[in-house]
Amino acid sequence: MPIAYLTRRTVIACAHRLYSDALSHSENALLFGPCAYENFHGHNYEILVTLKGKIDPKTGILFDLTQLKKIIHDQITLPMDHRNLNLDVPAFKTLNPTVENIAVVIWQALSPSLPKGLLFEVQVFETENNIARYRGE
Amino acid sequence: MPIAYLTRRTVIACAHRLYSDALSHSENALLFGPCAYENFHGHNYEILVTLKGKIDPKTGILFDLTQLKKIIHDQITLPMDHRNLNLDVPAFKTLNPTVENIAVVIWQALSPSLPKGLLFEVQVFETENNIARYRGE
Amino acid sequence: MPIAYLTRRTVIACAHRLYSDALSHSENALLFGPCAYENFHGHNYEILVTLKGKIDPKTGILFDLTQLKKIIHDQITLPMDHRNLNLDVPAFKTLNPTVENIAVVIWQALSPSLPKGLLFEVQVFETENNIARYRGE
Amino acid sequence: MPIAYLTRRTVIACAHRLYSDALSHSENALLFGPCAYENFHGHNYEILVTLKGKIDPKTGILFDLTQLKKIIHDQITLPMDHRNLNLDVPAFKTLNPTVENIAVVIWQALSPSLPKGLLFEVQVFETENNIARYRGE
Amino acid sequence: MPIAYLTRRTVIACAHRLYSDALSHSENALLFGPCAYENFHGHNYEILVTLKGKIDPKTGILFDLTQLKKIIHDQITLPMDHRNLNLDVPAFKTLNPTVENIAVVIWQALSPSLPKGLLFEVQVFETENNIARYRGE
Amino acid sequence: MPIAYLTRRTVIACAHRLYSDALSHSENALLFGPCAYENFHGHNYEILVTLKGKIDPKTGILFDLTQLKKIIHDQITLPMDHRNLNLDVPAFKTLNPTVENIAVVIWQALSPSLPKGLLFEVQVFETENNIARYRGE
Repeated sequence: MPIAYLTRRTVIACAHRLYSDALSHSENALLFGPCAYENFHGHNYEILVTLKGKIDPKTGILFDLTQLKKIIHDQITLPMDHRNLNLDVPAFKTLNPTVENIAVVIWQALSPSLPKGLLFEVQVFETENNIARYRGE
Repeated sequence: MPIAYLTRRTVIACAHRLYSDALSHSENALLFGPCAYENFHGHNYEILVTLKGKIDPKTGILFDLTQLKKIIHDQITLPMDHRNLNLDVPAFKTLNPTVENIAVVIWQALSPSLPKGLLFEVQVFETENNIARYRGE
Repeated sequence: MPIAYLTRRTVIACAHRLYSDALSHSENALLFGPCAYENFHGHNYEILVTLKGKIDPKTGILFDLTQLKKIIHDQITLPMDHRNLNLDVPAFKTLNPTVENIAVVIWQALSPSLPKGLLFEVQVFETENNIARYRGE
Repeated sequence: MPIAYLTRRTVIACAHRLYSDALSHSENALLFGPCAYENFHGHNYEILVTLKGKIDPKTGILFDLTQLKKIIHDQITLPMDHRNLNLDVPAFKTLNPTVENIAVVIWQALSPSLPKGLLFEVQVFETENNIARYRGE
Repeated sequence: MPIAYLTRRTVIACAHRLYSDALSHSENALLFGPCAYENFHGHNYEILVTLKGKIDPKTGILFDLTQLKKIIHDQITLPMDHRNLNLDVPAFKTLNPTVENIAVVIWQALSPSLPKGLLFEVQVFETENNIARYRGE
Repeated sequence: MPIAYLTRRTVIACAHRLYSDALSHSENALLFGPCAYENFHGHNYEILVTLKGKIDPKTGILFDLTQLKKIIHDQITLPMDHRNLNLDVPAFKTLNPTVENIAVVIWQALSPSLPKGLLFEVQVFETENNIARYRGE
């Protein structure tokens, strides 16, 4: 049974600002520049969720895509799409919604709904130039 | 002197929500759905500014690209990038920041800084699926 | 009331082959080459539907996007997505499903469901290199 | 001698349907939905073939690109492009042409024509949202 | 007979520099900045050639794509691809190879090989941010 | 402290030709074809620089993006953008500027300016079809 990788891409539109409560106001302004502006800005976040596992010889698939789409919809799209990450998403109440942390939070949201060991990587494109990946390490 | 079109692409990241003061709360919710959520969401807006004019035989250009980049930076990027369209951009204090209206507002912001008749089209990609164009009509 | 253009992008996956009943078998083979192979091939067709109209000052929109998405879903996605254009789509029973004709057929399918005069253009990307547009002319 | 990765992208247009002979008709319909429709649909498959190896200090290359293009053309484009994967490609006579299996089959087709150990990964984009990778594991 | 638009995309890789003999050395440096550097730089130019015409009811096509590909190959790819526009392409011996002028030169190169009135537009992407179009005006 | 990957994308426009001094003139012509043409051609090189490291719990970032952008600008954009790789970039005086070697040279240029162990990968897109990666191996 060959081991393959299956990736599903989803796009969500969110508002956010970068601001860490562990830093002073001027440290935030210095480190994050315009990303720290008070009234939020936003992005179309492209999210690539990758599973790694054996291809089932009976079906030819690694995981049921309909189920994967439903898990991504329920765990990511519903709570995060068209939302303000800082104000609406509990995980970012105390966590700065940097693109690195967004990748970690999406991993944590998806992981419990997937068979153990299947989730391989979460990649997040904040813009065409800024990209983060998290592999559960 | 051949007449050509010159397009410059720029990307800005903004928060916004769709909400018209001329509609009731429930009319807004019905018409705009998740786009009307109270705490804003956001997009990477791709903006394509197109000029139409004669190619100068001496220089081979339609318009100085350095100048065009400066005009776009001063009139669009500075006031709108990493901003909340509803809260930070005066034009949207009374205007709903739909992708159609964003194209119109960008046209109005650029037009006075460009030689009369040169601006041909403003195109705005809100997402890869939603696009508006305005040609000053 | 400014006049703007609003474009909605949709992707459908179809099988097809290029074969005209008005041509002989060898004329088809000569003109269409591998596109005429008997067992069909396929494409992810990117479809851009563009409306042209006045922006309603009350709502800030040219046309209700939810409605536009439903019309595209009902008239295009349901009958054509994951289908064989030659075998499953009545319009192509007698019409060769070239990218030019696909643009015309999509125009004809959408037009009756939209307010008169609103539909401006249907653009179809067959591949990243082959694109057709139809404007009802 | 530094070790690098070299990737070549190719696009092929194929018809296929997802249907496993090991499943009943209704199991296929349930698992694959519209992908199981009888008359086939199709995709523009983007294929990224990645080699991993030492950069030859004399030439500065990892592998001759002209040769790699010929191998991909002979082993992948000729037998699969503008073809029906289920009907025309022997490997899929008994194998369901899922995007996972397509990556495996392309690996198996390329591998014998390349120096041992050089092929690192085959990545297949079925759509912009569904992607598989195979690394010979 | 419906009137449609057919677009073919091609990519060529060229070296060039922007330098007008009608300007002094310092005027060139001022106007074109790094684009005027002496030893050339280069781009992957994406070229979109658009024809406008009637769809032949017998074949379903506007123009034979095999022929269009051959004309583009002979008139554009052969003389310009992997070439230095300033040094290798006669048209740019006296003409500054700006993206505007490249669009005009491609129009002039293609036009004599196509039926009169069929060529509608040549669009040239110099980068993802700088684009020119020429329509024979 | 989760370990993540952060990628920054940059585009530079360069002229180059493929020509190895260790090969004869005809060997170069045979191996590199049009890429060996004497007067250079060029590309828009897309460069993806990836760091791998721990996310700082205080700031939520892996590395200061402003600093990363400055390092890329100083080490890559300033010496290479709008330049001729063969003539203007010292590293390619004796090294053939293949896409593989460009990835290695960019790694070597960035590495001394970054904290030890942080740089994970340099990926270079020469065209949409030819891509190299180097990971310091």
